[in-house]
Amino acid sequence: MNNRHGCFITLEGGEGVGKTTNMAYITAQLDQAGIDWIRTREPGGTPLAENIRQLLLNSGDEKPCDTTELLLMFAARAQHLQQVILPALQKGTWVVCDRFTDASFAYQGGGRGQSEQTLELLEQLVQEGLQPNLTLLLDMPVELASQRVDKRGEVRDRFEQEQQAFFQRVRDAYLQRALQHPLRFRVVDASLPLPQVQQQLDEYLQPLIENWHYSGETP
Amino acid sequence: MNNRHGCFITLEGGEGVGKTTNMAYITAQLDQAGIDWIRTREPGGTPLAENIRQLLLNSGDEKPCDTTELLLMFAARAQHLQQVILPALQKGTWVVCDRFTDASFAYQGGGRGQSEQTLELLEQLVQEGLQPNLTLLLDMPVELASQRVDKRGEVRDRFEQEQQAFFQRVRDAYLQRALQHPLRFRVVDASLPLPQVQQQLDEYLQPLIENWHYSGETP
Repeated sequence: MNNRHGCFITLEGGEGVGKTTNMAYITAQLDQAGIDWIRTREPGGTPLAENIRQLLLNSGDEKPCDTTELLLMFAARAQHLQQVILPALQKGTWVVCDRFTDASFAYQGGGRGQSEQTLELLEQLVQEGLQPNLTLLLDMPVELASQRVDKRGEVRDRFEQEQQAFFQRVRDAYLQRALQHPLRFRVVDASLPLPQVQQQLDEYLQPLIENWHYSGETP
Repeated sequence: MNNRHGCFITLEGGEGVGKTTNMAYITAQLDQAGIDWIRTREPGGTPLAENIRQLLLNSGDEKPCDTTELLLMFAARAQHLQQVILPALQKGTWVVCDRFTDASFAYQGGGRGQSEQTLELLEQLVQEGLQPNLTLLLDMPVELASQRVDKRGEVRDRFEQEQQAFFQRVRDAYLQRALQHPLRFRVVDASLPLPQVQQQLDEYLQPLIENWHYSGETP
């Protein structure tokens, strides 16, 4: 079988939950399993979408209003899907993406108060039914996550500058979304020591990897 | 009465129909009538929205896909409305805008084939019911308009580079939109000699100007 579509894995969570470290762990596991993969991120992932990312993250003189922010997120996503994600999946490459539409439900929905209905309309317009095969949500209390962002010592972007209450709404919306989509979501307790976090990731990745190898051996 | 909202006038039409010349004529008429006005344009109108305009018009290596184009247009519009158009109207300043949402129905709808339903959803999300008080549609056959663009001798942007069939669909969609919204639309035959075009503009502007002066004199 050569016409298998790749698996689409998204990694979600607020600031400071350890997405970068665990993304590297996930792709290392895919390497070990002999799977072709690409790693990408949102907002961004193509030169045009990275330009849109700059408009979204920079806190310059003119901040995007909430509706502008929402539409820019989905504009970047549409481009990223058409140019990068879909072509890769179609040729059997796995795509591991740092944030996707669940982040819009968390940040623009929970954080900024955009309605679920509006988000679902944009999701349908841009994705036409496509969903990740597996969404790994790295979850931890917002106080702990915030301490970790402070330790990085980097300049915070426009989202990272938000207040505790905003991040609490983001976390709540992520967990709500996981409840609504139990088949593709796996919630990882990211406050545990790293080896235990990675053990959870392994556990959730293994069925996809085994399934992929099994289908590859079927004539 | 000091709490009058300004009038919102939009000027619409394809490439080469004479929007720039007639925009100047309209604002001169408003000056003569002693009316405060601002002139603006879409996509654009704020520094952030002008950045989005650059992403839309430049035909660089990576063209926006149709859905990205659509969402960028409405993202720029949301910002323009919140930052420029609504604040001006609220303090009684008239706004004359070179293209607005009808252009999305014409270009992204007629031109690119986005559904009317999708456009209406985005229109509602961004405008929340606000519509121009008067939309002046400059209309002429596409062959004539195309000759005029050629005469300018400028480098064509990504939209101006489209083919005749695209512009015919844009014109048809504009005329269709005028039929659907007869109260606010006025179609101007822009193929006539300039004095006759401006006579039509006068005729359509006068009722708004008279109404404005009348309401200003009412205690």
